[in-house]
Amino acid sequence: MPRIYWEDFTPGSVDTYGPRRVTREEIIAFASEFDPQPMHLDEEAARGSLLGGLAASGWHSCSILMRMMCDWFLLESSSMGSPGVDEVRWMRPLRPGDEVTLRRTTVETRASKSRPHMGTAKFAFELINQAGETVMTLTCTIMFGRREAGSVAPAAASAAAAS
Amino acid sequence: MPRIYWEDFTPGSVDTYGPRRVTREEIIAFASEFDPQPMHLDEEAARGSLLGGLAASGWHSCSILMRMMCDWFLLESSSMGSPGVDEVRWMRPLRPGDEVTLRRTTVETRASKSRPHMGTAKFAFELINQAGETVMTLTCTIMFGRREAGSVAPAAASAAAAS
Repeated sequence: MPRIYWEDFTPGSVDTYGPRRVTREEIIAFASEFDPQPMHLDEEAARGSLLGGLAASGWHSCSILMRMMCDWFLLESSSMGSPGVDEVRWMRPLRPGDEVTLRRTTVETRASKSRPHMGTAKFAFELINQAGETVMTLTCTIMFGRREAGSVAPAAASAAAAS
Repeated sequence: MPRIYWEDFTPGSVDTYGPRRVTREEIIAFASEFDPQPMHLDEEAARGSLLGGLAASGWHSCSILMRMMCDWFLLESSSMGSPGVDEVRWMRPLRPGDEVTLRRTTVETRASKSRPHMGTAKFAFELINQAGETVMTLTCTIMFGRREAGSVAPAAASAAAAS
């Protein structure tokens, strides 16, 4: 049974989790498999890039954020997945040895009109390094099961029945 | 020396690459490390989820798309990285055994106002399975070196000098 349901997310609340240390080995392992651009693999090549030194693939940063979300609250929740991501900004390099914390702002929650057992929550995440600098921002919506089923508006119910 | 520069991307052009086969083993390996939700790890748990069966983490789909971009054109290009992603939509499950192709639409290209050696290209990507269904869409901007440096507008040049 989940411990955290849709009802437990409060719009406007800000919470943090971490830190998690990022190693040189995992940066190179991820890049070797998914993003083998020299700036993510080789210190010297990276020094000549806009990153100014070896840094994680942006997709590695996203994947680290996802794992932190899982360990923090998602695996204990009634999560039903996500339709996608609204925006990702890679603002500063994520370096070997960085210790990152994850800050979550709950932007809004909505009850599903057609599924009385479901609601969505929109979050703005910031991945922050040990110097307090924002490395990445990411905005996404996650679907959660509700602790107690809501009512379904008649219009929405007939639309769902028709689809 | 890169083979592909900023000048080589033409707004409105549509190109495809692939296919690439996605295995059950890599789906589980990625999820185990970055997104250990049961629907990405276990067939039976996944059958009871909205995914209706084992499917890749959305971040794995993004990472596969990134690797396909690298193998297709990015590693041969003057890419300087990306400021982020505008939107990701996970539209259908990515299943074990799927063979995906990547479709790239060049949405627009812009010369940098402050950096005469750089331009940006905005792309809309679609990851498409063997049934012709769109699994994921992703819109992002990538910075590329120019084959021939452009001129810098006086206002932009002084703004850059002042920063």
